[in-house]
Amino acid sequence: MSGASAPVTGSVVALCGGIGGAKLALGLSRVVAPGKLTVIVNTGDDFVHLGLHVSPDIDTVVYTLAGRSNAETGWGRAQESWRFMEAVAEIGGETWFSLGDTDLATSAVRTARLQNGDRLTVITRDIARALGVGCAILPVTDDALRTMVETSEGILPFQRYFVGRKCQPEVKGLRFDGAGVARTTAEVRAALTAPDLAAVVICPSNPYLSIDPMLAVAGLRERLASVRAPVIAVSPIVAGRALKGPLAKMMAELGKPVTQDSILSHYGDLIDLLVVDEADRDAVARNSRMRVAPTVMTGIDGKIALARTVLALAAGLGRS
Amino acid sequence: MSGASAPVTGSVVALCGGIGGAKLALGLSRVVAPGKLTVIVNTGDDFVHLGLHVSPDIDTVVYTLAGRSNAETGWGRAQESWRFMEAVAEIGGETWFSLGDTDLATSAVRTARLQNGDRLTVITRDIARALGVGCAILPVTDDALRTMVETSEGILPFQRYFVGRKCQPEVKGLRFDGAGVARTTAEVRAALTAPDLAAVVICPSNPYLSIDPMLAVAGLRERLASVRAPVIAVSPIVAGRALKGPLAKMMAELGKPVTQDSILSHYGDLIDLLVVDEADRDAVARNSRMRVAPTVMTGIDGKIALARTVLALAAGLGRS
Repeated sequence: MSGASAPVTGSVVALCGGIGGAKLALGLSRVVAPGKLTVIVNTGDDFVHLGLHVSPDIDTVVYTLAGRSNAETGWGRAQESWRFMEAVAEIGGETWFSLGDTDLATSAVRTARLQNGDRLTVITRDIARALGVGCAILPVTDDALRTMVETSEGILPFQRYFVGRKCQPEVKGLRFDGAGVARTTAEVRAALTAPDLAAVVICPSNPYLSIDPMLAVAGLRERLASVRAPVIAVSPIVAGRALKGPLAKMMAELGKPVTQDSILSHYGDLIDLLVVDEADRDAVARNSRMRVAPTVMTGIDGKIALARTVLALAAGLGRS
Repeated sequence: MSGASAPVTGSVVALCGGIGGAKLALGLSRVVAPGKLTVIVNTGDDFVHLGLHVSPDIDTVVYTLAGRSNAETGWGRAQESWRFMEAVAEIGGETWFSLGDTDLATSAVRTARLQNGDRLTVITRDIARALGVGCAILPVTDDALRTMVETSEGILPFQRYFVGRKCQPEVKGLRFDGAGVARTTAEVRAALTAPDLAAVVICPSNPYLSIDPMLAVAGLRERLASVRAPVIAVSPIVAGRALKGPLAKMMAELGKPVTQDSILSHYGDLIDLLVVDEADRDAVARNSRMRVAPTVMTGIDGKIALARTVLALAAGLGRS
């Protein structure tokens, strides 16, 4: 399965969270025609820190697609400095969440514009453009959406669980505060109803932490279910492990086997296909809705190759 | 007139704005007994910028007394870096007001704690202590106080006039939004009613921009008028010019001669003495409420010498 040489026509929508998902978004951005890729990003991880509105997933996607991401950490910006954090520490401020000197600028400009009444969608568009990103990066909603983790230590806001407690507490459940009233934006709706929509790609982000908060936003799940284009997810699990982050630990704590079947079952009828890694070829043999491809995405070539494969699969489904 | 060797006993309260006033506050901090100096600072210049609560005068005083001020600019911190501002500029944020990477930390910690319900007084105390300041630095009020400049270009918030427009517009008047409801803090009131209060010093700050907003806070003027200790102001004018800032230009625009008589008349009965520079010895000869001393305060020795002179004058008045 390669499809590597097939030209990609039509528009493509990707849904993604932070680091893992952003890799495939980067691959897609190199394959989809200019102006035709829309990346819808989770805002459930957003929070106010040191007075500023921080949008970790949006910024990771923007930096990654701008070629400005920190290759070592996966989050934050390349060539970052930390004098702000050192000064925060000196005067007794909170240091459990690190904001680099230049990363901070993104949050500060965003905060100032939000206070000025601008929409997160417009602010994100302007920042992405200024950094040279050629595709649309859309927050799933302009409204408040906050992932809360129900743990053995009580309810923790996402960043307190993820960064503050390093995913140590046992996860008992998740809830998405604000999802009941948050609405998708006109831009998100327009992307999903584009007449030339060729594929919806759910990136290999954590389904529970990065994709579910988006699906909880009023109407998004129904809209995805009704798109005519194929919906293809790439699994974040490889051979029973998560490449990054707490997914495998969390699935075990939630009583789910860390398998491709669990991921497929989680997305259910929402997706047409689940792309799994070559290491899980056995699972594919047992399920007609799975396809195999190298999902580890080493280097830019690996990201582009996976993007091409996913879009070729979509083209195949679209033609069927 | 020197009084340089006189030991200073009792507590001292200084009122000051930013750069000019902070110099004398620094001198006082080297002369007044440990724990006996309280510096009450203007908050009329405070504003929200890039999402953060910036308190320029408080920070200038804190940095100056901590030995961390930028000797070249007079504002901001020594050994500052500017990566944040460069990143703000790159994404189209506001750059007319500069916040260094480490200076920013002060505003961020302050903002986060204000959002958390802490008082500006307590936040300022903690930051000053963390930076090694040994005296009390008190915002004149914990309530909103905003200096607005009535200019030929309309009403400008102070920083827009001062930094944004570099004091170019003609000043027609000043108003202090919030002063009608802002209250002095318990800490300010306690300092001014201390049984051992030996002197109140009005530092050589701009009377219109730095001292008047404080005097406009409900009750402060009356409380100052009723202290038993001598109240001594140091003039910010030297030989018809302001050492720094827009004072002389502003006085001319407001129709006031740029003279020591104008400064004395402005403070009126509030002060017992006005200390003027040696260059204005002539004015002193004409007015029994003026005294002469070197007010330019070159180097730390100049600051300490002026502090000693002012306190000796107060001691002389107190004994009379």
